Amino acid sequence: MKNYRPKNRLTSKAYIDGILEGDRVILSRAITIIESNLESDKALAKEIIQAILPVSGNSIRIGITGVPGVGKSTFIEAFGKYLITKGHKVAILSIDPSSQRSKGSILGDKTRMEELSNLENAYIRPSSSGETLGGVANKTAETMLLCEASGYDVILIETVGVGQSETAVHGMTDFFLLLMLSGAGDELQGIKKGIMEMADMVVINKADGDNIRNSELARLQYQNALHIFPQSESGWTPVVTKASSIKNTGIDTVWDEVLKYKKLVLENGYFEKNRNKQNIRWMYNNINDALKQLFYGSANIKQKLLDLENSVVSSEISPVKAAQTIMESFKKHLTNTTSK
Amino acid sequence: MKNYRPKNRLTSKAYIDGILEGDRVILSRAITIIESNLESDKALAKEIIQAILPVSGNSIRIGITGVPGVGKSTFIEAFGKYLITKGHKVAILSIDPSSQRSKGSILGDKTRMEELSNLENAYIRPSSSGETLGGVANKTAETMLLCEASGYDVILIETVGVGQSETAVHGMTDFFLLLMLSGAGDELQGIKKGIMEMADMVVINKADGDNIRNSELARLQYQNALHIFPQSESGWTPVVTKASSIKNTGIDTVWDEVLKYKKLVLENGYFEKNRNKQNIRWMYNNINDALKQLFYGSANIKQKLLDLENSVVSSEISPVKAAQTIMESFKKHLTNTTSK
Repeated sequence: MKNYRPKNRLTSKAYIDGILEGDRVILSRAITIIESNLESDKALAKEIIQAILPVSGNSIRIGITGVPGVGKSTFIEAFGKYLITKGHKVAILSIDPSSQRSKGSILGDKTRMEELSNLENAYIRPSSSGETLGGVANKTAETMLLCEASGYDVILIETVGVGQSETAVHGMTDFFLLLMLSGAGDELQGIKKGIMEMADMVVINKADGDNIRNSELARLQYQNALHIFPQSESGWTPVVTKASSIKNTGIDTVWDEVLKYKKLVLENGYFEKNRNKQNIRWMYNNINDALKQLFYGSANIKQKLLDLENSVVSSEISPVKAAQTIMESFKKHLTNTTSK
Repeated sequence: MKNYRPKNRLTSKAYIDGILEGDRVILSRAITIIESNLESDKALAKEIIQAILPVSGNSIRIGITGVPGVGKSTFIEAFGKYLITKGHKVAILSIDPSSQRSKGSILGDKTRMEELSNLENAYIRPSSSGETLGGVANKTAETMLLCEASGYDVILIETVGVGQSETAVHGMTDFFLLLMLSGAGDELQGIKKGIMEMADMVVINKADGDNIRNSELARLQYQNALHIFPQSESGWTPVVTKASSIKNTGIDTVWDEVLKYKKLVLENGYFEKNRNKQNIRWMYNNINDALKQLFYGSANIKQKLLDLENSVVSSEISPVKAAQTIMESFKKHLTNTTSK
């Protein structure tokens, strides 16, 4: 395999040792291998991950979401700096499958976290680009493992609050934090359905100046509203607090709640149970994505599906029959291609 | 095909004519064909569905859910009787993939809707049995089409409020109704996460006697809480009302709200848009189920998956690599079986 390695690649041992020693430059280069689509890099990535897997996992993984404008970067900057003063090593990652197209990833815009990114114990890595959410999520999750192996004990994973990526982040983190603004009860803030129910904590951000009173009202409103949600399997009751990232208030409370949560779920066994479940689900998500790729990746199938969609909408064929029709031609297609 | 037909089967034309004429006996026998797993019946079912498809769809489809004990059967009995006095023909179906095992389907227990089931314009059909939710949902959805073709203009589809079947019912209905009890704000009532957000209407049931005041409090609490949910694509704001199925109060309000909803979504185009989207999603759900069946149905794969799950949990292999490993052996398996 070494023969096919691009010139600027190290040996797998050099990457693994560098990561374990906490070498940030090597960590960055290793993440580049994870994100690469070159076949030789994929093999190298597998070797690296396989080697660091047993020493990964030793962190608290926090998902952070909220719509654009809620002050996510500023919050992460304040929260990250606070964590570092408490002696933690903090890695900040993101899942944003759209960043490739829009170039709008908040984390890509490092200037907005300038102070944090200059700190020794902070490691900031923007979202990898990729065509599918599944692909991007895989890369972020593997990057997380590398960061953990490199000694980062708090992982913050940011998402943009408007798409499917929240579910992906929720599926790879221990604690899910939703940032909101005051005066939002009736405005709904563009948060996708279902995201509210994932939250372990809601933080009313920008609770400063003239906004303090409204923020407290919003806090009470959300706190009451969260009561109608079904109890989470973790046994944790979601909390709502307010914070100002600019005035640096309420940031310590967020961490206190994370620690309370961690204590609870370590004691009741949910922490480990959830991590195991997440890993198994991660495997199945990959399998299901691959299965779909096998089917929907075929140009032949794609054209047939468009025709069938039209026939279904015009009631010419029932959805069940349409599915049977295309599955038959898929099986034929498999036979033809695999027996060649 | 006629040669292979079981003796007690009619011709497809006889079923189709009977359904279109509103013959309840023929309708029931046709639904039995839909539910049958005999190959000859499957072909017959396809013929029937294909023929009635163009005249199906002319109804309002209402999903009704709530945990056991909320008084669903009594509510449906009261609601159904009310609709019939208003001149409607009402079909009551259910999705309960567990009924096969538990024999506990509420609709299976017809005695609990005795009065309703004796009415000329009510048609009650318990959940079909089946091994998978997808299979059961297909049969219920096709049964719905047959009922519509037979002149039923209100379809009530009941589900049990504790599993995945709510999503299936939500995916095949125009309006989703959640039944709750008073005093439930903090008790959470065992409703699954995400179901609350699907509701177009929440009805606090059993609002009678000593319970009236608590029901009004619960109504206000839910109404306030629903404000924090994101706006639905339909443009409809969910309403919360109270009702007593026994005292027969608030039942008319439920129907009034359904009519308001229907007027709104017919005017803003969401009704048709949603039906089209549901049909297309129904096709894709069937395709994805079939793809999964192709993979997970293999005994060879099943054993390998169990081994891989263990390796993933013990961090011997990463979830991504585990998925790649099994996909490779699946592709080999396909080649072997299809080239034979």
